[in-house]
Amino acid sequence: MQTLHLDLGDRSYPIHIGQGLLQQTELVRPHILGKSAVIVSNTTVAPLYLQAAQQLLDGLKQSAVTLPDGEEYKNLDTLNQIYTHLLEQKADRKTTLIALGGGVVGDMTGYAAASYQRGVNFIQIPTTLLAMVDSSVGGKTGVNHPLGKNMIGAFHQPRCVLIDTDTLNTLADRELSAGIAEVVKYGLIRDPAFLQWLDANMDKLLVRDPAALTYAIYRSCEHKAEVVAADERESGQRALLNLGHTFGHAIEAAMGYGKWLHGEAVATGMVMAAELSQQMGWLAADDVAYVRHILRRARLPVAPPVEMSGDDFMRYMSVDKKVLDGSLRLVLMKSLGESIVTAEFDTEALKRVLSRNS
Amino acid sequence: MQTLHLDLGDRSYPIHIGQGLLQQTELVRPHILGKSAVIVSNTTVAPLYLQAAQQLLDGLKQSAVTLPDGEEYKNLDTLNQIYTHLLEQKADRKTTLIALGGGVVGDMTGYAAASYQRGVNFIQIPTTLLAMVDSSVGGKTGVNHPLGKNMIGAFHQPRCVLIDTDTLNTLADRELSAGIAEVVKYGLIRDPAFLQWLDANMDKLLVRDPAALTYAIYRSCEHKAEVVAADERESGQRALLNLGHTFGHAIEAAMGYGKWLHGEAVATGMVMAAELSQQMGWLAADDVAYVRHILRRARLPVAPPVEMSGDDFMRYMSVDKKVLDGSLRLVLMKSLGESIVTAEFDTEALKRVLSRNS
Repeated sequence: MQTLHLDLGDRSYPIHIGQGLLQQTELVRPHILGKSAVIVSNTTVAPLYLQAAQQLLDGLKQSAVTLPDGEEYKNLDTLNQIYTHLLEQKADRKTTLIALGGGVVGDMTGYAAASYQRGVNFIQIPTTLLAMVDSSVGGKTGVNHPLGKNMIGAFHQPRCVLIDTDTLNTLADRELSAGIAEVVKYGLIRDPAFLQWLDANMDKLLVRDPAALTYAIYRSCEHKAEVVAADERESGQRALLNLGHTFGHAIEAAMGYGKWLHGEAVATGMVMAAELSQQMGWLAADDVAYVRHILRRARLPVAPPVEMSGDDFMRYMSVDKKVLDGSLRLVLMKSLGESIVTAEFDTEALKRVLSRNS
Repeated sequence: MQTLHLDLGDRSYPIHIGQGLLQQTELVRPHILGKSAVIVSNTTVAPLYLQAAQQLLDGLKQSAVTLPDGEEYKNLDTLNQIYTHLLEQKADRKTTLIALGGGVVGDMTGYAAASYQRGVNFIQIPTTLLAMVDSSVGGKTGVNHPLGKNMIGAFHQPRCVLIDTDTLNTLADRELSAGIAEVVKYGLIRDPAFLQWLDANMDKLLVRDPAALTYAIYRSCEHKAEVVAADERESGQRALLNLGHTFGHAIEAAMGYGKWLHGEAVATGMVMAAELSQQMGWLAADDVAYVRHILRRARLPVAPPVEMSGDDFMRYMSVDKKVLDGSLRLVLMKSLGESIVTAEFDTEALKRVLSRNS
């Protein structure tokens, strides 16, 4: 087992990564302060891992709520199912919530923990690669609104993140690839050497080689923890982690949540960001081709859905959380391995990138 | 005009109290950091004061959303109306929300501000006595769940509280009395001299004597600011401000939100807390009679609804936010002007107090 620490003063917490961690009670118990816990999972993950998670809590008052699976359920209605369960169980301010599942379960459980009785503790047990390398670390929680992704939420840090890499053995291939998109992202924004490693080890990741997966997860969490420790509430460099996300969120919202996986939309969004970076004169054509190449190797889509026009993109991008005082800001690449957040891009070039389908 | 400061480090803010403040643009503008603002009000207050509030924002991009009036609308559905408005207006992270109304508008606007895009600024302009002396100060925000009051929410401090006492001239008598319940509360928990002042000046408050009202508001806000500055997130003495509230919340939830005004339920709850304090041997019969006397003088109810049994109370009280690890804690009175939070009460005595109707 390897352990990273996210350093946030009195809100610091450990990230444990390894095989068989769902059997190691002593990792979780110190982070449960009261006498009761509620596990939140979904219909896909609960049949596989709920029993193991319940054993972690042996001796505590515990219950579980199982949500429908999918990004299309990441909304206020599903969130309310968690609140109702907590109230029916008479959960109080010392209750600890446990998120057992992928990014949707983690984001919703975290937001329920942030808002139930104005805030209770929670623990992340991510079971998808995407949740392990990105969403379970850093305290961003929330739900979608029909008009925009993650528009309702809070910063609320977990007490502990428990990454049992064994759970990846039951992950669908498409979900594995979607997770790799966020791994590639760390290479593109801040680590050219990691990008080369990914290129050399992509086949191992796709066949779920444990050592390769563990290294990719560890390195990704290390990047995430460094960035979040420096800028918890995204007033500066944390926004770099959104490379490809402004384009990607527009795809997810326009196509209907759940049609494109988040990682798939982000992969395509990173290609679009690369294309705009090329138009700005920052990336060479070869660089953009390399971005497409590495994402294609991960079996990810690299072109936006044919149904979406440039106007569709503009409509959804105009409510992105990186808009400030009316100006859209984007994460673009100065080179492979170095990204910036900027509102200083050529609007005509953006429109060309967005309108390649039309 | 008088100004108090709530001291919370980098989240400190001023509370301005006086006549005609809705005409004083310079009080509000320094607290609006971006270029846009959204006013949230309700169908009762908007016809009276929305135009004045809009003039405060002259020159900014602004819009308004008008909610239905009443505690029964303080829920996730109404909150979602605010989110939808914000997204339709393409409100970004630098948008400032303005709560123009009573406690329901203030709590919901504050919670929308806490959660929209993971947090934007907001300003409180309370127009009811209850909101002026209690809910607009201190950063408690949230909505109700059918199973419990204020069960979903956040601590999120406003940037400024603007109390224009002229707005009390349009307040319904019943709402004025409900506000006085929270004023009496400060006397009962920490200020015997204020209790005497209230007894001597109750008639002036009821006929809306401006000097008496301003003094009562100022003194109440001073108490609130002191308590919140010492214990922002209610780990200790802030819980004292909930005198009568555990009983009162049960009344509001059991009767259906909006049937009893919050202040009316709190008044009755304070009488019940006094009765239990008497059973504990802390208050004399005369003290309890005095609590009833001063609340009756404010034209407030002093007995629970006849429809509610002791079991009804227990059911709703068991999900109170002051329950910790399964133990109910109550605010009780050691003497008139001194209260404590305790789980060490006689359960049989509590049942007697709760069952007086049955």
